Amino acid sequence: MIDIRSYLKERATFIEGALDEALPADGTAVVEAMRYSLLGGGKRIRPILLLAAGDTVGCDSDLLVPYACGVEMIHTYSLIHDDLPAMDDDELRRGRPASHVRYGDALAILAGDALLTEAFSSMAVAATSHPDLSVAIAAIREIALASGARGMVGGQADDIAAEGTDADLAAVESIHARKTGALLRASVRAGGILAGASDEVVGCLTRYAGNLGLAFQVVDDVLDATASSETTGKAEGRDEVRGKRTYTAILGVEGAVQRAVELRDVALGSVQSLGAAADPLRGIAEFVVGRVARASR
Amino acid sequence: MIDIRSYLKERATFIEGALDEALPADGTAVVEAMRYSLLGGGKRIRPILLLAAGDTVGCDSDLLVPYACGVEMIHTYSLIHDDLPAMDDDELRRGRPASHVRYGDALAILAGDALLTEAFSSMAVAATSHPDLSVAIAAIREIALASGARGMVGGQADDIAAEGTDADLAAVESIHARKTGALLRASVRAGGILAGASDEVVGCLTRYAGNLGLAFQVVDDVLDATASSETTGKAEGRDEVRGKRTYTAILGVEGAVQRAVELRDVALGSVQSLGAAADPLRGIAEFVVGRVARASR
Repeated sequence: MIDIRSYLKERATFIEGALDEALPADGTAVVEAMRYSLLGGGKRIRPILLLAAGDTVGCDSDLLVPYACGVEMIHTYSLIHDDLPAMDDDELRRGRPASHVRYGDALAILAGDALLTEAFSSMAVAATSHPDLSVAIAAIREIALASGARGMVGGQADDIAAEGTDADLAAVESIHARKTGALLRASVRAGGILAGASDEVVGCLTRYAGNLGLAFQVVDDVLDATASSETTGKAEGRDEVRGKRTYTAILGVEGAVQRAVELRDVALGSVQSLGAAADPLRGIAEFVVGRVARASR
Repeated sequence: MIDIRSYLKERATFIEGALDEALPADGTAVVEAMRYSLLGGGKRIRPILLLAAGDTVGCDSDLLVPYACGVEMIHTYSLIHDDLPAMDDDELRRGRPASHVRYGDALAILAGDALLTEAFSSMAVAATSHPDLSVAIAAIREIALASGARGMVGGQADDIAAEGTDADLAAVESIHARKTGALLRASVRAGGILAGASDEVVGCLTRYAGNLGLAFQVVDDVLDATASSETTGKAEGRDEVRGKRTYTAILGVEGAVQRAVELRDVALGSVQSLGAAADPLRGIAEFVVGRVARASR
């Protein structure tokens, strides 16, 4: 196995640099606000997964980077909009004031809009020089479909609508499969697609990513329910205060941790056939769930 | 010349049908909110221009329609977000309650986000079956670049920042060239690009669209300053109330009308060489400015 902590740290630094280059400061308020949120640290799990999936298949990294930046821009825009007073009303993000606290609601909305748009600009500009245009278009389509009404945005809308209701586990999983899972899944699939993976390999990557995405949300819920704001960079117990239906509310903390472990194991099984090149993908699944389940590894 | 009123009416009906098909109702709140704004009427000037530019060069309409729908989705998302209380705080749009009045701020923000994303989904899905993939990617890139921080969103950010200041004509034109003009220009250019136009023809189309876009905003300002809410579907004199710097504030109503006429004439000159196939483009320029300058035609 690889040293996953070093790997994640190196990759996050690499992506921070790529994002900085992809969106240079231009003196305008909107780009300043975009950069404030985009370069504010974060785990960079989506772009890391995209690059790792591409590496698993074998691919020139330069071809993957604009898409890795694209998925992180989309993720960042969704955080800015989710934090707005009209939505989740969070004032802290990654340990710093949320965009709307720093820049006001209007500029926060526009910075989110511009990041979403910039994601597609970056990917479309990169697509023009991809050696296989059909593969580049397929990756853009994959990421766009995962981010919209049938994916991430639809999940967020249902999540807000479900506040204060007694949604069951199936309903919560359906929400998170779209809200958090869809873009994670698209990141992994896009990495494979851009690298020219066979349908069979894309299938393995898809099962890996679907289970990892759910595990990721379970872990987030557990951390929200148990950790201090210092650890998560968010105000603690916010989900409970808002009456959000979480995995911990339904399964209890121990049950949620057990669920995360099960999801991790299915994810690991999905990439068993992909050889040593898939070690980063394995390490990521171990690491994500290890944040709440060190003892059960 | 063609009968421009019949032409615009027929095209708007055609586009309404195409949008209805592109985004079918699925029982979810977010798609309902998207359809409420997307199918709420409107002039459909951007998709009409895209189709007309493609027709000028000669192109199978089926190849153009997903992009025509895409630019209208982007335009619609921008209206939903601009109308929010945190932004322009408009309660009326196209004579009906604005999205946030009808659905609340959270769902309005999400419906806008989802429409912007859906635009790129629709275009990327269509791109996969375009006979010339490089042309399809170029059109997506064109539209994405026009819609983001260096285009439409940047113009809106500067417009909000300029409220209550004494911005001069050059500053106002720079704002509107991005806020309103960039997507209009991209629509015309994308139509030409998708139809395989030469660089020379794309150049003619670009000059036409740049001048038409500014004329369009001048006309909007004149109508806002002079017409009743019944005519515009918006609360009257809103710009003045907000302290927005408009063409009429700087040039007076008569001066603004004169400026619109000048811009129209440059637009018409730009497509002089394109033959009878460009008659719809000519008719549109005449029509847009004719709304305030019947006497000077």
